[in-house]
Amino acid sequence: MGEHKRIGILTSGGDCAGLNAVIRAVTHRAVGTYGWDVMGIYRATQGLMSRPVQAIELDLDKVDSILTKGGTMLGTTNKGNPFAFPMPDGTFHDCSEDIIEGYRQLGLDALIGIGGDGSLAILRKIAQQGNLNFVAIPKTIDNDVGITERSIGFDTAVNIATEALDRLHFTAASHDRVMILEVMGRDAGHIAISAGIAGGADVILIPEIPYTLDNVCRKIQEHQAQGRNFSLVVVSEAVCTEQGETVTWSDRFGECRLGGIGQYLADRLSTCTGAETRVTVLGHTQRGGIPSPLDRLIASAFGVAAVDLIADEKYDHMVTWQQRQVVYVPIQEALGHYQAVDPQGTLVKTARGLQICLGD
Amino acid sequence: MGEHKRIGILTSGGDCAGLNAVIRAVTHRAVGTYGWDVMGIYRATQGLMSRPVQAIELDLDKVDSILTKGGTMLGTTNKGNPFAFPMPDGTFHDCSEDIIEGYRQLGLDALIGIGGDGSLAILRKIAQQGNLNFVAIPKTIDNDVGITERSIGFDTAVNIATEALDRLHFTAASHDRVMILEVMGRDAGHIAISAGIAGGADVILIPEIPYTLDNVCRKIQEHQAQGRNFSLVVVSEAVCTEQGETVTWSDRFGECRLGGIGQYLADRLSTCTGAETRVTVLGHTQRGGIPSPLDRLIASAFGVAAVDLIADEKYDHMVTWQQRQVVYVPIQEALGHYQAVDPQGTLVKTARGLQICLGD
Amino acid sequence: MGEHKRIGILTSGGDCAGLNAVIRAVTHRAVGTYGWDVMGIYRATQGLMSRPVQAIELDLDKVDSILTKGGTMLGTTNKGNPFAFPMPDGTFHDCSEDIIEGYRQLGLDALIGIGGDGSLAILRKIAQQGNLNFVAIPKTIDNDVGITERSIGFDTAVNIATEALDRLHFTAASHDRVMILEVMGRDAGHIAISAGIAGGADVILIPEIPYTLDNVCRKIQEHQAQGRNFSLVVVSEAVCTEQGETVTWSDRFGECRLGGIGQYLADRLSTCTGAETRVTVLGHTQRGGIPSPLDRLIASAFGVAAVDLIADEKYDHMVTWQQRQVVYVPIQEALGHYQAVDPQGTLVKTARGLQICLGD
Amino acid sequence: MGEHKRIGILTSGGDCAGLNAVIRAVTHRAVGTYGWDVMGIYRATQGLMSRPVQAIELDLDKVDSILTKGGTMLGTTNKGNPFAFPMPDGTFHDCSEDIIEGYRQLGLDALIGIGGDGSLAILRKIAQQGNLNFVAIPKTIDNDVGITERSIGFDTAVNIATEALDRLHFTAASHDRVMILEVMGRDAGHIAISAGIAGGADVILIPEIPYTLDNVCRKIQEHQAQGRNFSLVVVSEAVCTEQGETVTWSDRFGECRLGGIGQYLADRLSTCTGAETRVTVLGHTQRGGIPSPLDRLIASAFGVAAVDLIADEKYDHMVTWQQRQVVYVPIQEALGHYQAVDPQGTLVKTARGLQICLGD
Repeated sequence: MGEHKRIGILTSGGDCAGLNAVIRAVTHRAVGTYGWDVMGIYRATQGLMSRPVQAIELDLDKVDSILTKGGTMLGTTNKGNPFAFPMPDGTFHDCSEDIIEGYRQLGLDALIGIGGDGSLAILRKIAQQGNLNFVAIPKTIDNDVGITERSIGFDTAVNIATEALDRLHFTAASHDRVMILEVMGRDAGHIAISAGIAGGADVILIPEIPYTLDNVCRKIQEHQAQGRNFSLVVVSEAVCTEQGETVTWSDRFGECRLGGIGQYLADRLSTCTGAETRVTVLGHTQRGGIPSPLDRLIASAFGVAAVDLIADEKYDHMVTWQQRQVVYVPIQEALGHYQAVDPQGTLVKTARGLQICLGD
Repeated sequence: MGEHKRIGILTSGGDCAGLNAVIRAVTHRAVGTYGWDVMGIYRATQGLMSRPVQAIELDLDKVDSILTKGGTMLGTTNKGNPFAFPMPDGTFHDCSEDIIEGYRQLGLDALIGIGGDGSLAILRKIAQQGNLNFVAIPKTIDNDVGITERSIGFDTAVNIATEALDRLHFTAASHDRVMILEVMGRDAGHIAISAGIAGGADVILIPEIPYTLDNVCRKIQEHQAQGRNFSLVVVSEAVCTEQGETVTWSDRFGECRLGGIGQYLADRLSTCTGAETRVTVLGHTQRGGIPSPLDRLIASAFGVAAVDLIADEKYDHMVTWQQRQVVYVPIQEALGHYQAVDPQGTLVKTARGLQICLGD
Repeated sequence: MGEHKRIGILTSGGDCAGLNAVIRAVTHRAVGTYGWDVMGIYRATQGLMSRPVQAIELDLDKVDSILTKGGTMLGTTNKGNPFAFPMPDGTFHDCSEDIIEGYRQLGLDALIGIGGDGSLAILRKIAQQGNLNFVAIPKTIDNDVGITERSIGFDTAVNIATEALDRLHFTAASHDRVMILEVMGRDAGHIAISAGIAGGADVILIPEIPYTLDNVCRKIQEHQAQGRNFSLVVVSEAVCTEQGETVTWSDRFGECRLGGIGQYLADRLSTCTGAETRVTVLGHTQRGGIPSPLDRLIASAFGVAAVDLIADEKYDHMVTWQQRQVVYVPIQEALGHYQAVDPQGTLVKTARGLQICLGD
Repeated sequence: MGEHKRIGILTSGGDCAGLNAVIRAVTHRAVGTYGWDVMGIYRATQGLMSRPVQAIELDLDKVDSILTKGGTMLGTTNKGNPFAFPMPDGTFHDCSEDIIEGYRQLGLDALIGIGGDGSLAILRKIAQQGNLNFVAIPKTIDNDVGITERSIGFDTAVNIATEALDRLHFTAASHDRVMILEVMGRDAGHIAISAGIAGGADVILIPEIPYTLDNVCRKIQEHQAQGRNFSLVVVSEAVCTEQGETVTWSDRFGECRLGGIGQYLADRLSTCTGAETRVTVLGHTQRGGIPSPLDRLIASAFGVAAVDLIADEKYDHMVTWQQRQVVYVPIQEALGHYQAVDPQGTLVKTARGLQICLGD
């Protein structure tokens, strides 16, 4: 089984369902199968920049009951880029060398980082700078990491958003209302379009497809004209409100006021259609649920595979899910393929086939 | 089985889970057992004031698959008091006689009304004015109708709010955040305190108990001092923000700005504790879920019993749930006992026993 | 707050959802509010008869994450009456004095026992024999403990059984099958009748009401004659198969072969109706789920109130749930009122009102 | 949009969650977008062999509320191969020409068949015989149809089985028991291994991997030796009991007594380990649930894409799910690749990495 190793694991960026399942799988594979040491590092890179380093040695007992728990037992953070970390005195400090030094103080042979594309890019940069052995696992409720078909946390988030639509359907119909559900998805509309199709939405607005309020109003008015007096609208939080006269989309790097798009739509749609509107903002409930079986399965597969990558000393790679198998790809390659909703892809075609208004 | 009857049924006020189960039970009992006619009236009293009257004859087929559906197949409305109903021209019209006339046009022998205390009081007033035979069934997610231990829809609403807390717990712990969940409860805090206890909240704010921000901040700071860096706060939408310098509660008839209390708390608690705060507003998802088994059970019992009240020609009564049995009480008596959360009762004692901060 | 106390808590009999919520509430009230010591005793009375006594001191940290967990962190057992306990050598031993001695070795001032009517009666007998201070909390998925409207674990069990019916409904209809669901309920039919009503069953068989196969067959044939080719049958595991020529019920103390009633019905109903039949045996999934919010709420209220009983030195009492409040009753009184399904009560009337066949 | 068409749709084989979502999507695409006629054929090919043909014209209203319903509104059957159909007189009749004639009587231009590999092979044979225009959609909770990564119904079945494991975990731990969960999977172990990994099973037995009882007993005894006194065992219903002295697996076409493997294991494991064992047989609850969002999404995509296949007159093809897209493949090709669990694949590697005993 090769030489003994001592590895670290950390969770970074926003939390999601399935992180604990990864930690459990890594521990089982590394400690249980290989007899290695596993250090769980607290609060992403902050655990490595703290002195003493904040970490805990993981064993099978410590991960025994975490499989079904949302969140991460190691904590995480999305406060602060370690290359320009906000200090208490208001200045910014490059903490990358502190992190590298923390890795060495822990005596690590390799590090497993679980994160989205933003935090994985940062971790990889640090690893290159310090010549650290780094392996990546993709997680994000937004499912926008490239190459991999699924990132951990996405399935659970879609389930929670769809369940909310199922509930809103009943009350919308009872009161003849237009219900607006604002879901997460900071740059990509995967949650919105997946939950919208699964939950029978009438309108789905995602950042990848420009929309006009006129189109949305027309759709709802058509419903009204046909005698169906309620509608369900799903909107990604990343959808923008207005730029100049028309409401358009922002691309990933554009300017856009995040937050409040649900209420904005409620106000405008009420005006143009005369319907009563109501808004639900699911917020962080989308991150925190009991992980779905699929998220647990993929998380477990990723955890085992990431340890095997280290056993093979195949660093600077990410585990991905492709065609029901784990496939290793260079991190650089994965991060180079940002994965937005494809306006020509199956999901969009399906939505159009179901006569769902996408606003365009 | 007594003489043949023709009865009407309507759902009024805000919708909730379990209304369809009542409609199904009424139909089974009246049509299936007694061989009566049942007319389902659309959109509460609006169906009766429309010409022609908007109603549908119900039979076993029409209610065959509605048991598990939220909302109401008959529609409902909480727009407009029929004694001062808003007309398209901006004036207000007393529609009570139109409603009474609608009842007669349908040839009804009796009417079953499902509603909260507000709409049941109105229906009773109309029934008295027109000498109609009226029987009441209590529903409200707020559970504030007097005498009955449970109103239809409450259990489901508590389940949904508790599930949200369960989800927020994980993500709060992962990010060291203070999570605020704003739940429904327009006058009474039953949802907030029940879900708060069941979901392990640290702070529960209800309209029945005055609170100060200082007390809430202190509770969260105590947590922080003990090394537990996250907290869960549940607040009823009816809780007021500020009156003058201090934050106090409004009683049922007081003035209070509804809406936005969750965000208000998030801003203030962030300031006083330094913690990151996030808000979830569940909104109408609390009304619309698949009814819980308990709501379906009580709804079924109420539906059957209401028909039996009519068979016995015992009008002006409401069915209530007491000690696991249906008990009939005069409507007047039930509506005379508004049921707020008892500040000396079991729920409050339990919350205090669990060291939950109630803000006082 | 009175003098310092050292109390024990144990869970006995079959496990169910909500036991951990009781343990958590007891710890919060006793340790958090009163500053007492709480010893959690392992595996019911077996922890007290072991040497050394098997127990753990409970504090707020140890109960921090158990609220939403099914089962009991202390373990339990329903193997062996302590007054005639099976020894490894095949003999039976009266262990009651060992248990009393265990209580003394732990230095307890009082003991909280959570159990069904069987185990509570045993615990009370031991307490009387040893002059121990004993307080009881009722739990049982069967809901057959007297006086209290609800015992811990019942609501969750009904939810799980109802959910199974909801699922079977779809597949029964798709294949024109008669689906039989065998649910728990060793002596009483509360789960079967509650889930049956809530889940839209066509036939409900409970031990409290004698049935004949002829009646059940006739009901299914009526369905077939009306063109509805599927039926849902719920049967309590306690329902008997046959005695002599006719199928009759056993009362609580009668003889009856437990187990297999579901398959028995499937065979007979297939023969008499010609329909395809399928059986689901939910088994222990009914015990193990995440506790429902209502079970958590009642468990929390019971836990706090049981500690307050001890603070008041009001021993030999049980906490009960009546009219949404905790009410104290002498244990003897509660155990003297076995609570079967009342053949004249609301549930049976509701089932009949919904035209559900009860087999009689 | 091409010429007007009149198409038929039928669901065949065992039902599962998501069939209604397909029917809805087909109707939306064909009626809503293209303005075609859609005939829903009842009970698979039996609707076509009946006279008059049993079918219903589908429109948007008829499919309006079926998205979240399990089962199939069209009914299905797995009774009888139409090439040797059992007649009331005990003989067998080749009904293929009747089915072809039924297709012509309905005036169909094309037929969409939703089924597993068995029923799709039969439908294709009939289509070839009658020169019918046929398009296939894969569904099966077993997920064993080739080429496609997912078949409709699989995700929901895994969710239900995993949920059962989650529940059994608690009660197993409380009582120190070995819990055996028997899940569906007639030929392939996909449900068992997916749910087993996701639900934290200790032992997973699937038909693709031979096992010995000795290996399973040893695993449980190791647990016992380490002080963990409970275990969770998941077994596929297709796993065989014994052949001669040793317990071995059957391949897909081998002989094997189906049914009862759960109880068989319970008896043997109780004997060899001394532990208490309990069995749960989920049965048809695995087929009938509310479809998971993922099943609804894939079903919707398949439904839209199948209609588009017909619009393109690209017959004899099946829609498949590959890399998050719908891909068309010749039916023959898909059915030629039976998809068992790969003993060298990611799922098996993951299970071994988690130290789950697979019996070999």
